[in-house]
Amino acid sequence: MRTAVLGTGTVGRAWAARLAELGHEVVVGTRDPSTTLERDAGAWDGFALVPFAEAVVGADLVVNALNGRAALDVLPALADALDGVVVADISNPLDFSGGFPPTLFVKDTDSLGEQLQRALPRARLVKTLNTVTASLQVHPPAEGTVFVAGDDADARALMTRVLTEVGHSDVVDLGDLAGARGVEMYLPLWLRLWQVLGTAEFTIKVVRPPS
Amino acid sequence: MRTAVLGTGTVGRAWAARLAELGHEVVVGTRDPSTTLERDAGAWDGFALVPFAEAVVGADLVVNALNGRAALDVLPALADALDGVVVADISNPLDFSGGFPPTLFVKDTDSLGEQLQRALPRARLVKTLNTVTASLQVHPPAEGTVFVAGDDADARALMTRVLTEVGHSDVVDLGDLAGARGVEMYLPLWLRLWQVLGTAEFTIKVVRPPS
Repeated sequence: MRTAVLGTGTVGRAWAARLAELGHEVVVGTRDPSTTLERDAGAWDGFALVPFAEAVVGADLVVNALNGRAALDVLPALADALDGVVVADISNPLDFSGGFPPTLFVKDTDSLGEQLQRALPRARLVKTLNTVTASLQVHPPAEGTVFVAGDDADARALMTRVLTEVGHSDVVDLGDLAGARGVEMYLPLWLRLWQVLGTAEFTIKVVRPPS
Repeated sequence: MRTAVLGTGTVGRAWAARLAELGHEVVVGTRDPSTTLERDAGAWDGFALVPFAEAVVGADLVVNALNGRAALDVLPALADALDGVVVADISNPLDFSGGFPPTLFVKDTDSLGEQLQRALPRARLVKTLNTVTASLQVHPPAEGTVFVAGDDADARALMTRVLTEVGHSDVVDLGDLAGARGVEMYLPLWLRLWQVLGTAEFTIKVVRPPS
């Protein structure tokens, strides 16, 4: 599978490395490759690091590993190139302008996932993985649930296959993209748990009733 | 322990029955006992069913089992009577005026728990259990996490003891009452899971890293 990872922060690095490890073709998109290479000396050896618009050409799966504000800034220009493409949206609508903890710049009656889908009307966006830290996104613990939400059922199914390949043992299909509101609004609880547990390496498992 | 349960809906009934089963003294508060008795013929046999203001007199623990709007309407008048009393706040800020799914009438930078604490400045409010359906609040599954958040550490500890007595095996102390924001904002995810799982009898477990 040809994959493009957009963003070169912790999430982008984790996904580029993991998709390559699984044998997928990976292209990494960044705003300005020379700036990124200068900042992260050596970190991108062996990867194709190109501008965002170049990275998405011909991709079967695009991983949005940008932060929420950056995604809203960068993705709209890629709308034509993302026609029909499955976009895994991992971003969160965090607003740090008031300090810690951040608030959410969209919530409740709308979501960042829905904002990005409206900006990319022909892409097949799947909200996923924003509920776990980068390391657990790509190397899941034995127990734990992750979620997919998106308006295209085939795209949710493709994303579920990718998550399973990565090692996720429990993927809950939340249905249409309005499900993104729930997983994004989970962030304040995630942030508080991070504080009180003293680690980001935790997740949640949905416990169903015995059948 | 002398306990008062405020509210006679599903949550109030579950708590009254469970606290009595555990040997606690239970008084149930309602707006108008005669109306409640007429509505719920037989359901309150064996319980003291009295007006709210009477129910809380001398209570060691008050369980707010009212819905969010009702709690804001009813509790402020009890502020003097609740001086020093531990109030378990199970309510959620659900706004059904736009249909299903409900939105949250307070969120992100404030919470219903904090609003109620401000209305009851001398009570020791603990936000808890709003993340699980009534039946699982009082008869927890073997696996699953519940939370306590409140500004008074002794009140959180008392509530944790009550939860343990009820059967909860994993209680996470979220610290001060701003932690109520996270557990209340979890509701949209809970509501979506309810829809896609087809049951309310589920919960979440916090999965920590192996130590």
